[in-house]
Amino acid sequence: MLSPVLRPGFIQLRVLDIEAAIVHYRDHMGLDLVSRHDGRVYLKAYDEFDRHSVVLREADNVGVDVMAFKMASQESVEELRRNLDRRGIVHEVIEPEEQPGVGERLRVHMPTGHLFDFYATMALSDNGPMTDNPELWRDDPKGMRIIRFDHCALLGDEIDAAAEILIECLGFSVTERVVDPDGENIAIFLSCSNKAHDVAFLKAPVKGKLHHASFLLESWADIGHAADLMARRDIKIDIGPTRHGITRGQTIYFFDPSGNRNETFSGGYHFYPDNPTRVWTTDKFGKGLFYYEQEVVESFVGVYT
Amino acid sequence: MLSPVLRPGFIQLRVLDIEAAIVHYRDHMGLDLVSRHDGRVYLKAYDEFDRHSVVLREADNVGVDVMAFKMASQESVEELRRNLDRRGIVHEVIEPEEQPGVGERLRVHMPTGHLFDFYATMALSDNGPMTDNPELWRDDPKGMRIIRFDHCALLGDEIDAAAEILIECLGFSVTERVVDPDGENIAIFLSCSNKAHDVAFLKAPVKGKLHHASFLLESWADIGHAADLMARRDIKIDIGPTRHGITRGQTIYFFDPSGNRNETFSGGYHFYPDNPTRVWTTDKFGKGLFYYEQEVVESFVGVYT
Amino acid sequence: MLSPVLRPGFIQLRVLDIEAAIVHYRDHMGLDLVSRHDGRVYLKAYDEFDRHSVVLREADNVGVDVMAFKMASQESVEELRRNLDRRGIVHEVIEPEEQPGVGERLRVHMPTGHLFDFYATMALSDNGPMTDNPELWRDDPKGMRIIRFDHCALLGDEIDAAAEILIECLGFSVTERVVDPDGENIAIFLSCSNKAHDVAFLKAPVKGKLHHASFLLESWADIGHAADLMARRDIKIDIGPTRHGITRGQTIYFFDPSGNRNETFSGGYHFYPDNPTRVWTTDKFGKGLFYYEQEVVESFVGVYT
Amino acid sequence: MLSPVLRPGFIQLRVLDIEAAIVHYRDHMGLDLVSRHDGRVYLKAYDEFDRHSVVLREADNVGVDVMAFKMASQESVEELRRNLDRRGIVHEVIEPEEQPGVGERLRVHMPTGHLFDFYATMALSDNGPMTDNPELWRDDPKGMRIIRFDHCALLGDEIDAAAEILIECLGFSVTERVVDPDGENIAIFLSCSNKAHDVAFLKAPVKGKLHHASFLLESWADIGHAADLMARRDIKIDIGPTRHGITRGQTIYFFDPSGNRNETFSGGYHFYPDNPTRVWTTDKFGKGLFYYEQEVVESFVGVYT
Repeated sequence: MLSPVLRPGFIQLRVLDIEAAIVHYRDHMGLDLVSRHDGRVYLKAYDEFDRHSVVLREADNVGVDVMAFKMASQESVEELRRNLDRRGIVHEVIEPEEQPGVGERLRVHMPTGHLFDFYATMALSDNGPMTDNPELWRDDPKGMRIIRFDHCALLGDEIDAAAEILIECLGFSVTERVVDPDGENIAIFLSCSNKAHDVAFLKAPVKGKLHHASFLLESWADIGHAADLMARRDIKIDIGPTRHGITRGQTIYFFDPSGNRNETFSGGYHFYPDNPTRVWTTDKFGKGLFYYEQEVVESFVGVYT
Repeated sequence: MLSPVLRPGFIQLRVLDIEAAIVHYRDHMGLDLVSRHDGRVYLKAYDEFDRHSVVLREADNVGVDVMAFKMASQESVEELRRNLDRRGIVHEVIEPEEQPGVGERLRVHMPTGHLFDFYATMALSDNGPMTDNPELWRDDPKGMRIIRFDHCALLGDEIDAAAEILIECLGFSVTERVVDPDGENIAIFLSCSNKAHDVAFLKAPVKGKLHHASFLLESWADIGHAADLMARRDIKIDIGPTRHGITRGQTIYFFDPSGNRNETFSGGYHFYPDNPTRVWTTDKFGKGLFYYEQEVVESFVGVYT
Repeated sequence: MLSPVLRPGFIQLRVLDIEAAIVHYRDHMGLDLVSRHDGRVYLKAYDEFDRHSVVLREADNVGVDVMAFKMASQESVEELRRNLDRRGIVHEVIEPEEQPGVGERLRVHMPTGHLFDFYATMALSDNGPMTDNPELWRDDPKGMRIIRFDHCALLGDEIDAAAEILIECLGFSVTERVVDPDGENIAIFLSCSNKAHDVAFLKAPVKGKLHHASFLLESWADIGHAADLMARRDIKIDIGPTRHGITRGQTIYFFDPSGNRNETFSGGYHFYPDNPTRVWTTDKFGKGLFYYEQEVVESFVGVYT
Repeated sequence: MLSPVLRPGFIQLRVLDIEAAIVHYRDHMGLDLVSRHDGRVYLKAYDEFDRHSVVLREADNVGVDVMAFKMASQESVEELRRNLDRRGIVHEVIEPEEQPGVGERLRVHMPTGHLFDFYATMALSDNGPMTDNPELWRDDPKGMRIIRFDHCALLGDEIDAAAEILIECLGFSVTERVVDPDGENIAIFLSCSNKAHDVAFLKAPVKGKLHHASFLLESWADIGHAADLMARRDIKIDIGPTRHGITRGQTIYFFDPSGNRNETFSGGYHFYPDNPTRVWTTDKFGKGLFYYEQEVVESFVGVYT
């Protein structure tokens, strides 16, 4: 099955202090602030066509409200709805303009406790990439030089059931899995595109938690630049610069002022649906997680929002 | 329409001196020599799962025999066949094992004079990427450190008709176009994936010609390394290192010993089918072609095989 | 003899339009504007301790007024004066504060028609590199991310005589030479440090001409970024990104709005005074000049100010 | 005073298993094995002119036998000898050819318990950098692509007295210092060149210990490649890729099979003797040590040979 999902479209995160979050996501990370509306702040990266890709909502607790995917067509959204009905999976409709510029969304209550939205229309940005005799960029990329919001990793208990929905109803492929000695999946990486992952599930006895929201950089050189900028501005680096064995991405993890984990990454292989699934066993999970350190860093797997 | 085409699968090129070609493609470019069979040499890049992606055939003239695409399933090949029949487009069947390890191919005679093959099965390579607790690579990439065969650019007259087949029958998207003052397309870039192009057509009053076969590198750093290696080994560089305005790829063009143009490139944007098409006009074509030089280099557009 | 010359300290260039020059050197190249004084504009790069390293003077013709070198001590300046006297080489004293913050300079009239100043004191900059628990930089480097003014290349007739002064009186080493078939030097590269060159002389039947003023970047990655920025802002690139065979530097040449040639470069080998001199012959001069293009580009050698 | 010391010339290390060490230094790090002689193995990096820069001696304990510096002339060695005599510092003569190709060395018994050799002559290598129409390199650099042996860091008690010898007798500059709350130096970085350090002393209640021997890479891109190679070949990484606050170098630390710590690094600022000394206080030492991690890693400061 060809996946009718184009890409992760946006993520809505809860932050404790919206002004501090703006400094972090706009000034340090370099995202464009699109608008403030209805208690939320909308941002996008310089190389994204759609209106926004990151939504911050001030709240008294942190984490992820919703992870949303752009689909190829409204027909594919309708097909998904029918499929969910057949399977008895809980879903609901989010009305158009609940976020400015975003059409109707089909919200799926995932077995891991996460809300996944699927939609086919979002307004184009006023300052997306140029299309008439386009320059490389409108302005020299700012801050960490983020290209786009790329993916997220989520923690929950029923990760096999969650993956099954994406695979069976939406044509996602499993690119990599980590299995414990009993053969149970403890991590599943899924792609709807040529990326090594568009979403990842990490098994934990929790519901609806966020491990990290990830943003694409151009190269290892920009990873180095981002690390310089983080250190200069005293942004706490969780780990990195390093490389993942899983996906092969080059990465830095750090935290926003509210404690939500961010990732900037580059590289990683290109995936095609006919590629074999890569499988990791727990004895090599350390190398899969961090290829250079070759060990499971407890603070990395144990801290989430 | 979602494209059922996964990727450019292989290209078969004609070379004048097969031994010199092996030195070039294996020793300088760093491809693995898979086998010699039936007057042909089969090669692959280190990060490709399938058996081969480049086929060299010794002949008394140079150029491209066939450009072949891997499809998601045999059903999608059959669907293409019916579609071609309806449209009255000439096609034929190439029997399995005409190339070792390759299943049945549906060969389309394109209006530009090129042969495009579509197939759903190829044997996996013995030394493709690892899948059990996979290392980054089996061995440190050799030569120019090529990741994969990526795309080709072809010259012909009926480029709109050729593009129409890929768009209408195979779900390709037009990522970029160059239009002359009369509004006619003089170059069309097409994608079946998240790449800025999987194949490009350049208009010229010829049939079945090759402009270049292109190979992916990891980064601008590897572009620099490849240029160093080319200069050190006195491989003639056509142009580069530079950047394209079109696709934004960072690139070097050079020639194999028979005069077929090769490209090594990195970067470029990620494409999604909902992205607007980028359009270039002839007055800015120079910047589209080579973003740094900002001019149309005659030897670049006028030399092909 | 150990060279008592520390480094190229500053260069004073003539420009036709000082406002356009400020846009170029400050906004595009990213130098800090230190002050305007006495019809001149003073600038520095972010990683330089001294007050200024580039001086622009508005005039009705372009080129270089003076190339100045910082020496290790006033005693070494005095020793130079005595040495010049013994040799009968014309020199004069430039009074302190002729440029703000700069001490007395010993001006040498070089046989090539250039003015070379030697001085031991310049005021420290207010925003040079930090020294107490120093951060990597005060602010993220701007524009082309230039680290420092690095060297210049000059055209003139009596290049052997000019080089002799630097070698005999000032302990410079010849790092590389280009010789014509008669064994005459047509280019001489000289170092007073661990750099592959601090100044270069190119033979031409002229007096006192500038080929280029060169600025250091961190890496090939920053060379790529600078090329992107130049193209985006329609700054005319003369040649590059490419690599020199001579010095091995990775480079881009471009012009300021008045037509003075600038270079941004990175890399190149580290030189020690016990290293052998590298010698190029005219048949390989093309590769020495531009390692990738492997040819002498006439516009490059024939255009100067 | 201008330093008559050109550079760190070679280091002689003790290893437990010479065959394992050869695999590490030659095959993994990519140094050329020059010769085996008298129980010792001599190696050099591809971009060094002199015969060798690393000497490995099999022994039943590990660490550093001697750190040796190349001087500008035999006269400067003699001047040093007189200076040491005046100061009553213990020294001795090592006869020519004690190491093949190396002339007479003046050995200084440093107050920190280290042996420092100073010499003016070493035979040129047969495969050093080319000098007649030189190519970038003879062969594509191997392994970690090390350019040269660069510096070492040493542990000992009397670090101020050791530094004083280098400063007073040999014209070294202090580039950076770390001071404790009592104003005592706990680390001193010294340069005889344009490098941020040619040798460093770290205070510890020991004599003659090695913290690490360091090797230069070209860029952050090569740091990434070296990390990939280390992980692929299961070479234990101590820390990195990261950046130092002190010197600003980008770095990876790892161990040879005997437990001697190696560093590969790139970047860092260029130093001139008129630059102010950078001073770190203990509260910021973490950031000075590892700019990204911003903390003193105990295993890093506590493990040495």
